[in-house]
Parts: sequence; C-alpha cells; structure tokens
Amino acid sequence: MLEKLKQEVFEANLLLPKYGLITFTWGNVSAIDRESGLVIIKPSGVEYDSMKVEDMVVCDLDGKVVEGTLKPSSDLMTHLEFYKNFPNIGGVVHTHSRYATSWAQAGEDIPALGTTHGDYFYGPIPCTRRMSDEEIKGAYELETGKVIVETFNERGINPDYMPAVLVNSHGPFTWGTDAHNAVHNAVVLEELACMALNTKIIRGSLEPMQDTLLDKHFLRKHGPNAYYGQGK
Amino acid sequence: MLEKLKQEVFEANLLLPKYGLITFTWGNVSAIDRESGLVIIKPSGVEYDSMKVEDMVVCDLDGKVVEGTLKPSSDLMTHLEFYKNFPNIGGVVHTHSRYATSWAQAGEDIPALGTTHGDYFYGPIPCTRRMSDEEIKGAYELETGKVIVETFNERGINPDYMPAVLVNSHGPFTWGTDAHNAVHNAVVLEELACMALNTKIIRGSLEPMQDTLLDKHFLRKHGPNAYYGQGK
Amino acid sequence: MLEKLKQEVFEANLLLPKYGLITFTWGNVSAIDRESGLVIIKPSGVEYDSMKVEDMVVCDLDGKVVEGTLKPSSDLMTHLEFYKNFPNIGGVVHTHSRYATSWAQAGEDIPALGTTHGDYFYGPIPCTRRMSDEEIKGAYELETGKVIVETFNERGINPDYMPAVLVNSHGPFTWGTDAHNAVHNAVVLEELACMALNTKIIRGSLEPMQDTLLDKHFLRKHGPNAYYGQGK
Amino acid sequence: MLEKLKQEVFEANLLLPKYGLITFTWGNVSAIDRESGLVIIKPSGVEYDSMKVEDMVVCDLDGKVVEGTLKPSSDLMTHLEFYKNFPNIGGVVHTHSRYATSWAQAGEDIPALGTTHGDYFYGPIPCTRRMSDEEIKGAYELETGKVIVETFNERGINPDYMPAVLVNSHGPFTWGTDAHNAVHNAVVLEELACMALNTKIIRGSLEPMQDTLLDKHFLRKHGPNAYYGQGK
Repeated sequence: MLEKLKQEVFEANLLLPKYGLITFTWGNVSAIDRESGLVIIKPSGVEYDSMKVEDMVVCDLDGKVVEGTLKPSSDLMTHLEFYKNFPNIGGVVHTHSRYATSWAQAGEDIPALGTTHGDYFYGPIPCTRRMSDEEIKGAYELETGKVIVETFNERGINPDYMPAVLVNSHGPFTWGTDAHNAVHNAVVLEELACMALNTKIIRGSLEPMQDTLLDKHFLRKHGPNAYYGQGK
Repeated sequence: MLEKLKQEVFEANLLLPKYGLITFTWGNVSAIDRESGLVIIKPSGVEYDSMKVEDMVVCDLDGKVVEGTLKPSSDLMTHLEFYKNFPNIGGVVHTHSRYATSWAQAGEDIPALGTTHGDYFYGPIPCTRRMSDEEIKGAYELETGKVIVETFNERGINPDYMPAVLVNSHGPFTWGTDAHNAVHNAVVLEELACMALNTKIIRGSLEPMQDTLLDKHFLRKHGPNAYYGQGK
Repeated sequence: MLEKLKQEVFEANLLLPKYGLITFTWGNVSAIDRESGLVIIKPSGVEYDSMKVEDMVVCDLDGKVVEGTLKPSSDLMTHLEFYKNFPNIGGVVHTHSRYATSWAQAGEDIPALGTTHGDYFYGPIPCTRRMSDEEIKGAYELETGKVIVETFNERGINPDYMPAVLVNSHGPFTWGTDAHNAVHNAVVLEELACMALNTKIIRGSLEPMQDTLLDKHFLRKHGPNAYYGQGK
Repeated sequence: MLEKLKQEVFEANLLLPKYGLITFTWGNVSAIDRESGLVIIKPSGVEYDSMKVEDMVVCDLDGKVVEGTLKPSSDLMTHLEFYKNFPNIGGVVHTHSRYATSWAQAGEDIPALGTTHGDYFYGPIPCTRRMSDEEIKGAYELETGKVIVETFNERGINPDYMPAVLVNSHGPFTWGTDAHNAVHNAVVLEELACMALNTKIIRGSLEPMQDTLLDKHFLRKHGPNAYYGQGK
C-alpha cells in the first residue's frame, strides 16, 4: 500500500539525523496521499539506526491505523490537523532542533531579518500562544494542532507562504509540498533561528527587514513571477 | 566477575566521546550490581582510545577495590554516595560537558523551559550550594556526594524523576536505570543546557513553562500512565 | 573555452560546502578572464552534489551568456559590478555564511578587533546602507552591486586592502586575486565575524584595536614590505 | 640533528588541525632541546596538508637557523622569549583558536570559574597589556614575548602553574613540559574560554570560584601531593 510514498517518508525521516536536526528520536516526518486521504508517519520512539521502511505506519485522517504493526508517532494527531486545514501541503516535519526550539521556549516569533529568511518565509515565523490547562489536559496532541491553525487563522497567515510554526514552550513544525520539501524547510528554519539569535546579540534590538526587500526575495522564488533557479 | 556489567560500563564510557560530552579523560561512567553491592567504574586518568574492558575497576560500596589492577576514577566516592542514597538507580555518569558545566559555573538551576526538558526532568535541574572550606579540605569527593544528596533531601526532589544535578563551580552528574540510560540522560542534559542558554539570550528572562504542560510531558513518558513509544 | 578557468571556478564552488560556508545552494563563486573580459560563474539553483564542470556558465561583462546551457546564478549582475569597478580582482564569492550574515542582518560593520582581522582586512569590514525601494524594485541584483561600490567610494576604502563587504539585511561578498583566494577570504571573514560576536559578549563594547597594530599586521603580509610566509 | 624531537614537533603541529584549533596556517608549535639550546619550530606559512617532518626548522636561541631550507615561523622570536625566561618548559604553542582569541580581543583575563579550570590553571589566565607603538614598530615579535614575560613578572605568576597567556588584541600562547603537553593545554584553554563566555551569558557577572576549591583541584593534579591518575 502506497509503497512509493512509504519509501519517501522513510528517507525523509533519515534526513533528520543527517542534517543534525534531532537528538535520539526527537522528531518525525509524515506525508499524505491526497487521493486516498491516507497519511504515512514514523512509528513512535523507534531508533533511527534500526528503523526500516516497513516500520512506517499508514493511518487515515481520523488517526486510525490502516497498515503497520507499530504505534504511530505520538504527534500523529498534530500532523493530521495540518493536513485537514492546510489543503496544499504534502508533508509535515516535527523536530526539537536546537535553535528553533530555543525561540519556541522564549515564546517569540522569529522576525524576518534578512534575505535568507525572505527567500523561504513571507514574514515573521509565528509562535503560538501558550495552551490552556484544558487543552493540555484534554486531547493534547490534537489541541496542539488546533492552536497552530488558530494562530494562522487569527493572524491571517497563508500557510503556503509560511511553511513553519513554533509551538510555544515546545518546538517547531514545518511543512511543504512533500516530505522532502518539509525537511528542507526544517533545515532553513534552524539556520534562520541561529542567525536571528546572533543578530540579537550584535544589535540588541531586532528590527525587521524592509517589506520591499522581503517582497522582492520571496516573490523572486515563489509565485508566478519567480525567476530563481533553472525555471519550470 | 560481573563480566556482562563490566562490558556494559566499558561501552557506556566509550559513548561519552562518541556523543561529544568529554574532552580528553574528563568523565566517567559507573554501574552497580545491586545483588552483590559491587560497583564497576572507569579507571582514573586512562585515555579512551587505549582503554580496554579489563581496565574497568570493581569496588565495594566502601570504595575498596575488589578486582582490577588500576586505580578507580578519583570521583569514585561521589558515585558511591549516589548508589547508597538513590536506591533505584543502576548507573552514574560524570562529565564536564560544555553547556551543563557552564550552568554549574554560574551556580544556577536550569529552569524547565519547554517540553524537551519536561520529557526527561520533572522540574528545574538543581545546582548545589557551594561547598564549605571544611568539605573541600576534608574527604572532598565523598563530601561532593553528600552535598548533592543534601540538595535533593532539602528541596524534596525525587531522584527517580530528576536524574541530573549540577555541582556548583564544577559540572554535571546524571544517573539512570543502568549505565546506558545514565549516558542518555547526560546527552539530554547537555542539549537542554544549550537551549536554556539560547532562550536566555532571546528573551532575557527565564520564566519556566506551565506546570500543567510539564506534568503532561513528563507523565506521558514516565510512570503508570505513560503512552509514548511502543509500550512495555 | 577557458577550460582551465572553468575548472578553477568549479573547484572553488565545491570549497564552499567543504568549509561549511553554505546551506543547500546558498552561494556562488565566479572568476574573470581579464584578457577576454569573460566571466565564469556557477549556474543558478543547481545542487553542489550533482554539479559538473561543464555546468559552469560563461558570460560577458553585460551579463550575456556566451557558453553554457544553464542559467547563470541570479547574483550574476552583482558579480559583474565588482569586476567592472575593482580592476585588480580575479574572483568573487557570495555566501549566506552564518556569522557574517548575522552581522549583515544587524546592519553593522565588523570592527577590527585583533591581529587575525588585521592579517587580512585593513580596517572595519563595511556594511552597506539599506537599499531604497526604487533600487529593490528596479534592477535589484545590479543595484546591489552599485550600493557596494558606492560604499567603497564614499568611505574611501581600497578594495584591494578590504576584500569583503556585508550587504545590509542580506549577507557577505568577498573577492580576491582569483576564485580560490576569494574563497579563502570568505573563510576568514566567517571566522572573524564569529570572534567579533564573542568579543561583544565578553566585553559589551567593541573598541577597535590600535591603528599601529593593524598597520603592523596588515603590512607584514601585504604590500612591498611583507615578510610573512616563504617569500615571493 | 635532533630527529626524534623534530618528529615530535611535526606531530604536535598536526594536532592543531585535528583538535580544531586552527584555520589555514594560523598556528605553530615549537620545542626546545635544553642540552644543546636548540629550538625546533614549524616553517612560516606552510600548509598543514603538505607539511613534512623535514620542513621543521632548527634554530638557536638567538633565532639563527641552524638547519632547514625554509624560513621559520614569523612568531619564532616570541617562542624564544618563552624558552629563555621560563626555564622548565619544553614546548610552546601559538594559535588563533576561536574562543581564546575572543577573550584576547576583549583584553580580559579568563577568570577561574570552575574545577575544569582549576585542574590545569592556577588562577585567572592573564591577558597582557596593549603593546606600545614603540614596541609594535620595533622588534615586534620579540617585544610580544617581552610583554608576556613582563605580565608574569609584574603579577607574580608562576609559569609552571599557569601554562597559558592571552596576548591583547592578538590571541593565545600555551606551553608545557613538551610539545604535546603544550598542545594539550591549548585544547583545555579553548574549552575554558568557551565555557567562561557561556557562564557570562547565564550569570551576567563573572565571580571566580573559591580559592579553597581552586587549591584543591590544582594540587590534586599537580605538585608533590597529587593523587589523580595512575600515579608516577
């Protein structure tokens, strides 16, 4: 069932240790097959060294396991909220990468400080509000997803132009057109989080870049007028 | 004598350079066989590159060498205090890892700032008081252990839920169910120490996470209601 | 056409990932053949792992592609401004290296704080002014080059003695006698940017080194009275 | 001539890149044969990758080359001041390692903040005063050595108990009983410099450790009552 996508999700998960984004098993990648509505995700708490492609778990959008002998990642319900609410995305990544998590712990957005940021993210990378006690004690992983979606809705952020979020006191999620693209964005986010911290040390304040420059860089690479790379 | 445990302690010691937790010989791992009350520990000042499994030293709980031709780690008496006072632990690790040691030098607890912390440590990671001149000039390594135990007793901290401590002006000790688990906790501690420092740079202050969230994450992985991973 | 120079540019591009100066494709190296006025540059958005020497693009000083099937780097017009205005240089490098980019995001010069700096750069490494909306919306990459040249002209900086610049809210460019020398300077710049940030943390302020010491170190290695190395 | 010592100096030089202490050729190691008064040192500006044992340069204490076809390191005269004034040392190392150089650029001593420091260095690691214009314009490398020796004399520091110095606005020198021991101390210094910077971020101030604890740790490893390691 969905063998090609299973392979993709497996390989994308292995990119997390390769890019230095995770310690032990602190991360997971999923992808969706939009036609069938099935989601493939890393199993919970399995070591990357011994993980095999057949360990990947196939679930439906309600979180029911459709194929696989292992339990899915405990973050599954958060991943599903992304797929239900962000209709254009194909893959989701969660990590506790060092610098992005530090910003999540600080409870602050990562401001758009330069063109590296503008090449990928169209504005400040949002940090969610703290979750309420009811949300934490309730269906916690589902509620985590709901708070993320709320952040995008209330602040009017387009998830196709902002493929990352920081969950307050927790860590980052990124997404993309597929699992590999979502990992790519996780790498970029971590680099931006580090450079933003450095910029704060150098300048003290964190004044964002000019909107004109942000527009220029983001739209140079995204949307109908993009001209970066070897074209489509 | 205790050949299997000796092998485990040897391998756990080799994980310290693998995980980047030590420079030269600045660290050691021990484990206890609760049945016989014997402790196995790294020899003192021996290079990791040339260390062999038969170099491990077997001692009793008074610190008397029972087997082995080399002197045990100079930190032996500190390790023994852990085994005598924390009855559920099976392994102890000492390092001078970069970030955890920086917090120890600052003499400050590492506050619980996010779920990465909450997944492993149930509250702020305590830093001991400075030792008195008498303690330093006396049976120093033993007194180091006593100050750690005092910290846990006076602050009412459960060592099974807080498997790490920072010794003021010195560095970290971690422990666990066995030697490998204690090394695992040493890796996590180092990562948390780095992220807490980063969080301080970003936000200035260090307000801890919500108690509800800390409870949720710690109890999701520990105790009778844990549901993370592939189950027991 | 210019096969030897093409090979040099190809190899110099591969040094960027080797020295840890780039993430993904965030960088490019070019070189000029002064006799023919032709410039060779990395193609746009091509992965370093799969890039081949024949992918290098040959352009004239107006940016017209003379040889090559791929589109040149989108930063081409910026590179050309360097070659047109700095007559003694042979190679140009652009990266988004972590520490130099952090200074560019802060919009601040990197002051000359020590002899490591003085061995390569004769004074503070300049950061350009922010670009105007007109410049950004116009021929952006060309205007980027013009702002850099303006910075050197208005501040009276000799580009042969200052082979680096920070583009405000963007990142660094370096140059040199050839492509390899330009990469060498990019490595040095990144190291200096990191050490200057550290120095700011330690001392708070950033008082520059003495002019006498800067003169001594720079002129020990550059100009007619140089005596460092094995001589010429 | 002195083939064994030449081999030692060669190998010790290769440890600098292995331990990540240098970029390009920014460092050098020397050693002295006290019987003949001859010093062996790395040649100036030679790449580590291509350096051979026979490239090592043999000089007398006046700096005259006695054997070798290459020019000695430009820092030779500084090294010689160490050998002339610190009679018990056998090897000297100079680097521009990242964190130690940052402290040198800040012009501040590295305070003794913890037992890692106390295990190797008996007090704050001194930073020299800035050199005068006369000293810089004169016999610069020799004067650098003189300012270092002055620092130790005026502050009453024993170089056998403090095998490191920071040259203001420049970088670190370390020394030891032989070339390898001097490299060992260079590694330790770099680690201490990083941890001291981190400690400053965490606590703001930099109150030193207690003298009693410093005494305990230093004298546990050095002097007649040492008991660390496998004994002598």
